[in-house]
Amino acid sequence: MLNAVLATIDQRKDQTLALLEDFLRIPSISTSPDHAADCRRCAHWVADQLKFAMLDVNVMETGGHPVVVAKNRHVAGRPTVLVYGHYDVQPPEPLELWTSGPFDPVVRKNSAGTDAVFARGAVDDKGQVMCHIEAITSWQANGGVPLNLIVLIEGEEEIGSVHLGQFVHDHKRALQADVCVISDTNQFARGYPAITTGTRGLIYQEIIVNGPNRDLHSGLFGGAAPNPANVLVELLASLHDASGRVNVPGFYDDVVPITPAEREAWKRLPFSEDAFRADLGVSATIGESGYTVLEQIWARPTCDINGITAGYQGPGAKTVIGAQASAKVSFRLVANQDPNKIREAFRQAMLDRAPPGVTIKFLDHGAAPAYLVPDNHPGLAGARRAIEAGFGKPATLIRSGGSIPIVSTFKAELGIECLFVGFGLPDDCIHSPNEKFDLDCLHAGTRTAAALYAELAK
Amino acid sequence: MLNAVLATIDQRKDQTLALLEDFLRIPSISTSPDHAADCRRCAHWVADQLKFAMLDVNVMETGGHPVVVAKNRHVAGRPTVLVYGHYDVQPPEPLELWTSGPFDPVVRKNSAGTDAVFARGAVDDKGQVMCHIEAITSWQANGGVPLNLIVLIEGEEEIGSVHLGQFVHDHKRALQADVCVISDTNQFARGYPAITTGTRGLIYQEIIVNGPNRDLHSGLFGGAAPNPANVLVELLASLHDASGRVNVPGFYDDVVPITPAEREAWKRLPFSEDAFRADLGVSATIGESGYTVLEQIWARPTCDINGITAGYQGPGAKTVIGAQASAKVSFRLVANQDPNKIREAFRQAMLDRAPPGVTIKFLDHGAAPAYLVPDNHPGLAGARRAIEAGFGKPATLIRSGGSIPIVSTFKAELGIECLFVGFGLPDDCIHSPNEKFDLDCLHAGTRTAAALYAELAK
Repeated sequence: MLNAVLATIDQRKDQTLALLEDFLRIPSISTSPDHAADCRRCAHWVADQLKFAMLDVNVMETGGHPVVVAKNRHVAGRPTVLVYGHYDVQPPEPLELWTSGPFDPVVRKNSAGTDAVFARGAVDDKGQVMCHIEAITSWQANGGVPLNLIVLIEGEEEIGSVHLGQFVHDHKRALQADVCVISDTNQFARGYPAITTGTRGLIYQEIIVNGPNRDLHSGLFGGAAPNPANVLVELLASLHDASGRVNVPGFYDDVVPITPAEREAWKRLPFSEDAFRADLGVSATIGESGYTVLEQIWARPTCDINGITAGYQGPGAKTVIGAQASAKVSFRLVANQDPNKIREAFRQAMLDRAPPGVTIKFLDHGAAPAYLVPDNHPGLAGARRAIEAGFGKPATLIRSGGSIPIVSTFKAELGIECLFVGFGLPDDCIHSPNEKFDLDCLHAGTRTAAALYAELAK
Repeated sequence: MLNAVLATIDQRKDQTLALLEDFLRIPSISTSPDHAADCRRCAHWVADQLKFAMLDVNVMETGGHPVVVAKNRHVAGRPTVLVYGHYDVQPPEPLELWTSGPFDPVVRKNSAGTDAVFARGAVDDKGQVMCHIEAITSWQANGGVPLNLIVLIEGEEEIGSVHLGQFVHDHKRALQADVCVISDTNQFARGYPAITTGTRGLIYQEIIVNGPNRDLHSGLFGGAAPNPANVLVELLASLHDASGRVNVPGFYDDVVPITPAEREAWKRLPFSEDAFRADLGVSATIGESGYTVLEQIWARPTCDINGITAGYQGPGAKTVIGAQASAKVSFRLVANQDPNKIREAFRQAMLDRAPPGVTIKFLDHGAAPAYLVPDNHPGLAGARRAIEAGFGKPATLIRSGGSIPIVSTFKAELGIECLFVGFGLPDDCIHSPNEKFDLDCLHAGTRTAAALYAELAK
């Protein structure tokens, strides 16, 4: 039966792309209040596709953007698989760096000379959600998905899945499954489809430094008045030591070190640090010393400043001491760091290090622990075979430096592990201008999803 | 004759205010290319007022915003006085902090309970230019200004007088005078009108850090990819040491120290550091240790970050490593620091301290050396008497932490010294939202300007 399903998928290629383009035209930017209606519209768009595939679909409220929950007709005795994805996307800014509009999907050649669809969300995660929608549709046209399916597509992944934890808790019984499948990760490289066996966690904070009660003339007050921008850069600079380690007390206390076996396995992967630098256009990488690039990204915790706002930002000069300065700062975490503990350590360090004359406030923008797939996960063998069926290449085992906030909730609330089978490529520019998804990956990903259902049905 | 002039000024109070409000409605923001036409319109507005006063007026091109040059009928044997001011203003941002529109002047009570006109440029420098225009007008209505007057009102003071140096050089003969009078400074406090005997210099730089060739996902790349925002905060934080001193090699080499006599004189001034902190709403001042607030602001060089732009600045979270981060940084200089030498030392320090993996660029936004009025300046005694005539209070000798870029050019090109007789108050919020000029100061300043012409005619 899988062969018939794969044949359907091969025949539906143009339709799959057209549907994805429709999906990509909806600017479902979850972080922006201005786009709340677009997020809701996008949820209904997803729901409609799953209804066309004859699933039983509900668009459910969460207190934030709605989630889409869909089920096929469940049959006792079959395994139950929860397919998780998200329809929300990152903001598209800076707009001027996009070759075509972020919400006007266009197919053109990628840098490898093959076709890709360019738009915000092309691969993260609308394109990969599309792979599952199309795999489901094709199975339904060929006798039905051979296992009990629960599809859960949320609208807040890019803002830390703020309401999904409560939703999963509240709908624990309805979401009960044997395993979760997530396609929101990458292949290792073009020609190296992969299973991701670990993701990093995240704690995202905003720090706001206030000084004088008004903006001041930097001549008439400079040298005595506390300058929040001066203070902010000192606080932020204190977050790293000279060796590139994060300088927050207790930060590394709970970190699970990389094993010698992992180091060996990762060294054997076809990864070139020269090519990595060339791709980024930088002469050197920086980071924690004593670790390779893959180790730094996959298995070491980090701190990055994601945004700073201070003083005058227009053209030319303004001789001002701004009353306020702020920064968005995120830490990527690894097993077994506790996001709440890291948040408190960060905040305490900033408060301890702040000079007198300023006040410090914080805002929360999401938290998630890291996640490691158990080595003995029963789905791994089937996922390897599905990738081979979908891509015609063997699967590589990799990790991801990114975060999928909800996976630890699935483990805690539903008692299930996640399988990360993702179809993106490292050059897909996710969260950046000119995000894209290779059409080959869209097609092979759809085939892989279909094959994975067959494998997990066994 | 001065008494008749002062009587005219007293009678013209309402008209003076109405004219100033007209002047304030023109958004002559010199740093913004969008306001170039407004700057030109403002120059012509100033020219028109001086024409009404029967001066011979020219609006002259500079390559940037035009300058207004006006002369009365010069009489051989009389002293020639150059009156300098500027019609351009700082940008009004942040707009949301203004109680009334920055270019919709409104008269209301200030925090002292007396009337003030609120608008961008109210005191810096349109209100003080208005004092001179009205003093001239009133003299002209009473037999004419009793000395040879050259009025020079420029439109680029707030952007470092970028074209005025060349203009002065090119028009050296036409601008030849015995002394320059500038009203672009403050009184010491309400009830303490002042002569400013020194201004600080300025070097204003923009530093731009570039890293990866595109914005990156901070999960998939964080820990290895150079983050320009991380680098920028480290570079900026390195500009101060733990004692609050500026940490640029050679920065203090040429600094003229404060003399024991100056320290003594300044300690006797009615200045309360508690009141200074209360006015700013801060619990402590920060700055170079070992110096009082007045010493820090008047006679010690400083470094302030005036603006930072990096990464995502919208609401909520974006997990991004921005490709670029930049900051506007200015140094206030004291005698005898050389702005060009400080610029090069700053740039070299940033380049030396930058890690590999990023590139650094700089933009220039103005430079000016500090200026000290000679103790034996022959105009000082007359200025003291003029202030007493205008304000009914004795003059205090103070310095200003601000900068007036052109004064060193007047000295070099025209061989003349400057007298700073300013009418603002420290709580005027210059360069800040809700800038204002007390109506009492507008009136007493106009009287002082008129009296000063009589004094300098002697």
